[in-house]
Amino acid sequence: MGRRYDTVSFLSDLGLVDETVGVVHAILRDIAAHARVIDLTHQIPAYDVRAGSLALARSIGHVPAGVVLAVVDAGERRPIAIEVAGGEGVLVGPDNGVLASAVAMAGGAGRAVVLNDPAYHLPSPGAVLPARDVFAAVAGHLCNGVDLADLGTAVDADELLPGVVPLHRDADGGGLHTDVLWVDRFGNCQLNIGPDDLAPWGHAEGARLQLTCGDLPNTTVRVAQRVSSAYGLGAGSIGLVLDHTGMLALVLERRSLADELGLGPGDQVTIAPLAEGAAGAGVAVPVTLRPAP
Amino acid sequence: MGRRYDTVSFLSDLGLVDETVGVVHAILRDIAAHARVIDLTHQIPAYDVRAGSLALARSIGHVPAGVVLAVVDAGERRPIAIEVAGGEGVLVGPDNGVLASAVAMAGGAGRAVVLNDPAYHLPSPGAVLPARDVFAAVAGHLCNGVDLADLGTAVDADELLPGVVPLHRDADGGGLHTDVLWVDRFGNCQLNIGPDDLAPWGHAEGARLQLTCGDLPNTTVRVAQRVSSAYGLGAGSIGLVLDHTGMLALVLERRSLADELGLGPGDQVTIAPLAEGAAGAGVAVPVTLRPAP
Amino acid sequence: MGRRYDTVSFLSDLGLVDETVGVVHAILRDIAAHARVIDLTHQIPAYDVRAGSLALARSIGHVPAGVVLAVVDAGERRPIAIEVAGGEGVLVGPDNGVLASAVAMAGGAGRAVVLNDPAYHLPSPGAVLPARDVFAAVAGHLCNGVDLADLGTAVDADELLPGVVPLHRDADGGGLHTDVLWVDRFGNCQLNIGPDDLAPWGHAEGARLQLTCGDLPNTTVRVAQRVSSAYGLGAGSIGLVLDHTGMLALVLERRSLADELGLGPGDQVTIAPLAEGAAGAGVAVPVTLRPAP
Repeated sequence: MGRRYDTVSFLSDLGLVDETVGVVHAILRDIAAHARVIDLTHQIPAYDVRAGSLALARSIGHVPAGVVLAVVDAGERRPIAIEVAGGEGVLVGPDNGVLASAVAMAGGAGRAVVLNDPAYHLPSPGAVLPARDVFAAVAGHLCNGVDLADLGTAVDADELLPGVVPLHRDADGGGLHTDVLWVDRFGNCQLNIGPDDLAPWGHAEGARLQLTCGDLPNTTVRVAQRVSSAYGLGAGSIGLVLDHTGMLALVLERRSLADELGLGPGDQVTIAPLAEGAAGAGVAVPVTLRPAP
Repeated sequence: MGRRYDTVSFLSDLGLVDETVGVVHAILRDIAAHARVIDLTHQIPAYDVRAGSLALARSIGHVPAGVVLAVVDAGERRPIAIEVAGGEGVLVGPDNGVLASAVAMAGGAGRAVVLNDPAYHLPSPGAVLPARDVFAAVAGHLCNGVDLADLGTAVDADELLPGVVPLHRDADGGGLHTDVLWVDRFGNCQLNIGPDDLAPWGHAEGARLQLTCGDLPNTTVRVAQRVSSAYGLGAGSIGLVLDHTGMLALVLERRSLADELGLGPGDQVTIAPLAEGAAGAGVAVPVTLRPAP
Repeated sequence: MGRRYDTVSFLSDLGLVDETVGVVHAILRDIAAHARVIDLTHQIPAYDVRAGSLALARSIGHVPAGVVLAVVDAGERRPIAIEVAGGEGVLVGPDNGVLASAVAMAGGAGRAVVLNDPAYHLPSPGAVLPARDVFAAVAGHLCNGVDLADLGTAVDADELLPGVVPLHRDADGGGLHTDVLWVDRFGNCQLNIGPDDLAPWGHAEGARLQLTCGDLPNTTVRVAQRVSSAYGLGAGSIGLVLDHTGMLALVLERRSLADELGLGPGDQVTIAPLAEGAAGAGVAVPVTLRPAP
């Protein structure tokens, strides 16, 4: 037998509008009554491996020792489990890259298996529902101390699908093309840059930068101010803050920047030193505001 | 005293936008601290007994021994509790049919009572809120070992309101009129037919069938292919798959069929052997697509 | 050491679309594995202190002994904790009024502290996320028996920001200007009046009153009937019922009154004795119905 676990941290794109997530909880209660289940979130957009991977990466540093279940776009790719941190944790999910960033942040992959031993799955009255018949069952058995090696065929971690994280690129004229990684509930837009990426232009509190977003002819140009908090920005002023994960994010004070600029995950924002004229004008004029989606 | 229970599986139309579900959890924690609560789903559409009944029926085979609380359109009909599986489970909810299919799937009703003994209810500062004042309280007392018979007046299970499940009908010209039972988070549309219902026409992998949905003059005619999985269908091709509950469902690959065809629960879809002309055409032309809702 | 707690009741405006609520659960599991977390609701509208305060006040009478965490519009105001009921409960949240009504309903404030001792907070990889770095951590330490006094600087409860509850006002001509406090999932609209407020006009079962809502020129005038339940009202008839919290609420039978009249939290509804002509007409004519929002 392997190590027993008493917590399952569970993230998915299954939503809460039907009973699938509840059935996973029910099965875990049935197989491993001692385990506690923590729902990280189930509202990853359907099939969005990238969003699931990022949410898992943002969470992993706070997740207790135990099983981590990430069921996003499950069904096509084979189910896998990966040990991390010397067996303190086991990440379970489809081999589609959703686990990759979190595994890396947890120190890299230890043993890995393809979950292909049906003895640890549940029978289905119809087609296999991976969340229910494979992932819930396997997570329960892991909690009960079934060793990883018993769950299926060992696989080399190098053979697993890697995650894909978009990187910022240099823009013509000295700026950076960045991507919106995540829009939180409040409409703050996290970008794929950290404070060091702005260092060439200085990024002291109060520094002002030019934002460009949207495609021609509906490009929006605005000014953002490097501040430590959205509080105090004042109505309509865009802030560029260090967020709670260590990345830079665009924010408004108590309003949704995503709504204001029509931004969503994957959209591009170009950040550049402030153009001379705009700097003189105090606040840049929005050239064209895209209508709210 | 009766048997003690340590799990309450909870399904409702109460939603998560306000604190009602949370208050039920709080009361259960207060009355029966040892019990664990599993939320099956709380997003059954408001007042939709049929949807609640179907979700409960899909779940019941996975629910652990214990109390099952199904609070859908509670308030008008009397509250009841029904023992199943020789007392391994007690289903609790309004006598409006929401429990009926699940009781049948759990082997039929044992003892049943109307929950009319106020000693096991909570006092309200205003009107009675059944979820809080009756159902949460009774579920907690059941977990503590209060016997079903103590909770109210025994009632014959035959006197309880039966559930209503829509059945498919033969269509003129050899097809079947089916109903959409359920649209899952991914937009897959479960129909009220199983694989055997298609047997007269053959339903081997790859078989092609004609779908008709929508009311005149906005009827849509499409071709669906009998496949084992949505993966591999290709863009725009409709699949007819055996789903994880053993029913047939209409699906697209990684897209919402419900959005594509404007289908929702209760809508009718007629399935028929493929008309000669359409078969020749490879893929049927959509006559009119209803605008997305 | 102080008293240990084993339940954290958790309400927030953090939503469920991302992992923030899940991470709070994860941290609580890590710091205080014995504690159970009850989610009251996380769908308080973003930044809406008033809505959070009202939901907490509606819940507090049912919350078990323990820690109550109310994270609404956290981030600007200092984090505080307030003991109630001789230490049976500790309410934790920002000093923005969100705790005020619940503290009052729990018998008033005992000891209070500003949560400014970083020894009981978590380090952040970037900016402080109060829900995660302060509130989750502090709630966990409280469960483990850390005394309130150790968490920060004692503060006089009189120095904390009070809550603001809107009061009804007398209207010209003998009616009452009331406010919609809360719209529940079913579209019932709770007003800030109790049955006694209608006493001058009589409010026996069946009494009929005139409602006016909306701003000129889109004013809607309707008749509401004082009934004990929405069931039996019939299609389109508006009921005025005593709700489960002891307040009066406007309802329809199995339909959303909020949708019908375009009402939301904070909207004003004037209630008055029925005008003579309208009484004769049986049911008032809607003058203008505002389009649904």
